[in-house]
Amino acid sequence: RINGDRLWDSIMEMARIGPGIAGGNNRQTLTDADKEGRALFQRWCDDAGLSMGVDKMGTMFMTRPGTDLDALPVYVGSHLDTQPTGGKYDGVLGVLSGLEIVRSMNDLGIKTRHPIVVTNWTNEEGARFAPAMLASGVFAGVHTLDYAYARKDFDGKTFGEELERIGWVGDEEVGARPMHAYFEYHIEQGPILEAENKQIGVVTHGQGLWWLEFTLTGKEAHTGSTPMAMRVNAGLAMARVFEMVQTVAMDNQPGAVAGVGQVKFSPNSRNVLPGTVVFTVDLRSPDRAKLDAMRVRIEAEAKTIAGALGVDCAVEAVGHFDPVTFDPTLVERVRKAAEDLGYTHMDIVSGAGHDACWAAKVAPATMVMCPCVDGLSHNEAEEISREWAAAGADVLFHAVIETAEI
Amino acid sequence: RINGDRLWDSIMEMARIGPGIAGGNNRQTLTDADKEGRALFQRWCDDAGLSMGVDKMGTMFMTRPGTDLDALPVYVGSHLDTQPTGGKYDGVLGVLSGLEIVRSMNDLGIKTRHPIVVTNWTNEEGARFAPAMLASGVFAGVHTLDYAYARKDFDGKTFGEELERIGWVGDEEVGARPMHAYFEYHIEQGPILEAENKQIGVVTHGQGLWWLEFTLTGKEAHTGSTPMAMRVNAGLAMARVFEMVQTVAMDNQPGAVAGVGQVKFSPNSRNVLPGTVVFTVDLRSPDRAKLDAMRVRIEAEAKTIAGALGVDCAVEAVGHFDPVTFDPTLVERVRKAAEDLGYTHMDIVSGAGHDACWAAKVAPATMVMCPCVDGLSHNEAEEISREWAAAGADVLFHAVIETAEI
Ligand SMILES: NC(=O)NCCC(=O)O
Ligand SMILES: NC(=O)NCCC(=O)O
Repeated sequence: RINGDRLWDSIMEMARIGPGIAGGNNRQTLTDADKEGRALFQRWCDDAGLSMGVDKMGTMFMTRPGTDLDALPVYVGSHLDTQPTGGKYDGVLGVLSGLEIVRSMNDLGIKTRHPIVVTNWTNEEGARFAPAMLASGVFAGVHTLDYAYARKDFDGKTFGEELERIGWVGDEEVGARPMHAYFEYHIEQGPILEAENKQIGVVTHGQGLWWLEFTLTGKEAHTGSTPMAMRVNAGLAMARVFEMVQTVAMDNQPGAVAGVGQVKFSPNSRNVLPGTVVFTVDLRSPDRAKLDAMRVRIEAEAKTIAGALGVDCAVEAVGHFDPVTFDPTLVERVRKAAEDLGYTHMDIVSGAGHDACWAAKVAPATMVMCPCVDGLSHNEAEEISREWAAAGADVLFHAVIETAEI
Repeated sequence: RINGDRLWDSIMEMARIGPGIAGGNNRQTLTDADKEGRALFQRWCDDAGLSMGVDKMGTMFMTRPGTDLDALPVYVGSHLDTQPTGGKYDGVLGVLSGLEIVRSMNDLGIKTRHPIVVTNWTNEEGARFAPAMLASGVFAGVHTLDYAYARKDFDGKTFGEELERIGWVGDEEVGARPMHAYFEYHIEQGPILEAENKQIGVVTHGQGLWWLEFTLTGKEAHTGSTPMAMRVNAGLAMARVFEMVQTVAMDNQPGAVAGVGQVKFSPNSRNVLPGTVVFTVDLRSPDRAKLDAMRVRIEAEAKTIAGALGVDCAVEAVGHFDPVTFDPTLVERVRKAAEDLGYTHMDIVSGAGHDACWAAKVAPATMVMCPCVDGLSHNEAEEISREWAAAGADVLFHAVIETAEI
């Protein structure tokens, strides 16, 4: 078994960097806090005898050598970046559990045939630079490096500039690392494991996603002196699109979600009807046909809704991945590890996107999940217990050792 | 008649300060651009022989003496601040027409018994610091100076700090100026005069207003892994409130408007359902009973709508004025001036709020309006013709002279 206290202490130490306002974290990607978090992780890896490689996306690859110089590494990773008001565990648990299994191997004198590479992927959250899982997406050949470097944050700063600014542009070509296997351990971020009273989620699939960005163009006008009949009200059109998105999600139950996270009104003045409204829709389903049909319906109905108010509606897809089926052999290895260790477990579909979803394009990949309180995530109040954290790390430890071969 | 070309040239010169992005202006109150606009206006007033007084709200009072040292001044004013994406005429036309009538009196050697005071009220727009008409509101005793100084902009800067920063804290107590009469000339900001093909609006009344600020508190949660049934979705509640506000306005036709200008999602991240949504509702009617009933209904229905989704709903009134009836004697004087000068005219209700609405609390007050193209205002594309501008200034000139007595 791994050392659950050491794992927990490391998580709590990392959480001191980029503190939030309500007990969580604001350590958004490529900020000064991210830089500080990376330095701490690097120091810990150093102490554990790992050697570092960094690619041009700033992803950190920390290697524990294997006994067979020709054997491809087993990767264990997740992310240290957070949402603007994120939790202490989302991503961090996976990276630091990767470190913990290496520390435990060191303690126990375990040598593996395949090297182990603990990985911290850059910009998993996608909160500052859309889309999410950006570095693993470039790694998997889904995006070009130029595309990634040109992503902009709210203030117009690019990913490329900011990566340079914090000093983490590595020299490795992105994706130049064949993998024997990829494991990711993550909190569920949903309510199922807790409700079912299971310690371990054996992740068989991941939901697919579309991120749509809507730009509604109405007519900027005075809220007081513009008669109702003369308004070309982009804000009202937005409201109707929100309601329609909700209806589409409800029509596709079970197994679909859709909602809005980001809104920008312009000029955003109390006594001006907005000239432009930009907002994002996040829609997901584990069923590809359903996912794509929802997208088509949402785009079509939004245009009808806006059109009826004289409002122009443009839609751009700014993020997408298909539903993922994880590698059955690795999935079975996770299930067996949970079983052998005596942890209660169930098969589960990941509701969130993870770097594992892109890694699955280029290597056998799977995930391990632990419950989180009330299914709450992307909230500073995100919480897990020390025991939950340790159980998943134990399962990860065993499945990785099995895969890396003693 | 006033000098229409000189008036127009002054408007165009002022419009060079704080240029917008689409031909209009961004000269928001207490910004560096506002400071520059004030300096230009001050220089022009100096050249016209006016002496300056400034009160603790930064309002500029530029006096042309009368022949009777005991006679109270006739005030002619409006504002030089603009919306973030405002037009070149909203407010500016009134202030610079005040200057123009004084310049014309100088040219023609006209002496009046009562002094004339051309006034530039601070923060009429209320875009940066709510509520609107802030300085005239303090002047009329509706707000305290402390209240005004504590108003905050989007970045948390206070009115008091910013007034200090641009160096326009005057030494006069606010409101310490009894008025013989107050006149304000403004573009209509609505479609009626143009549609009716009239050159002059004789403003008999002003609409009343409520500015409500809603804070909806839901549960910040992951957009992907939070099942539809578990969401406490403040964004969806907001959408339903928007639709209800629209319904309330439509149910009160004719003679009412309501709409939303400002929205703030938190944390405003694509893959996070908002924990908090703040938005503003602007509702108006010339009928006080209707206005107050709309407010009550909107607040009550918003709470029901939010409650049904488990979302908490708090409402704060951040701006209010009752419908105004302007002084019948002054109104008649404006009507007669238009008639005598041969301009087509009609009686009209002001759809927007103006400093005249507060001035009317402490002095006989009225307004003159000219049409604007397509009724468009609070939009950089706001437009009027040189002839429209001049016609209203002529009417103002005559009504003011009549009131100030040669
Ligand atoms: N795990 C996680 O929250 N990733 C961010 C991408 C997503 O929104 O699913
Ligand atoms: N005239 C004008 O637009 N004033 C701003 C206050 C209001 O919204 O009516």
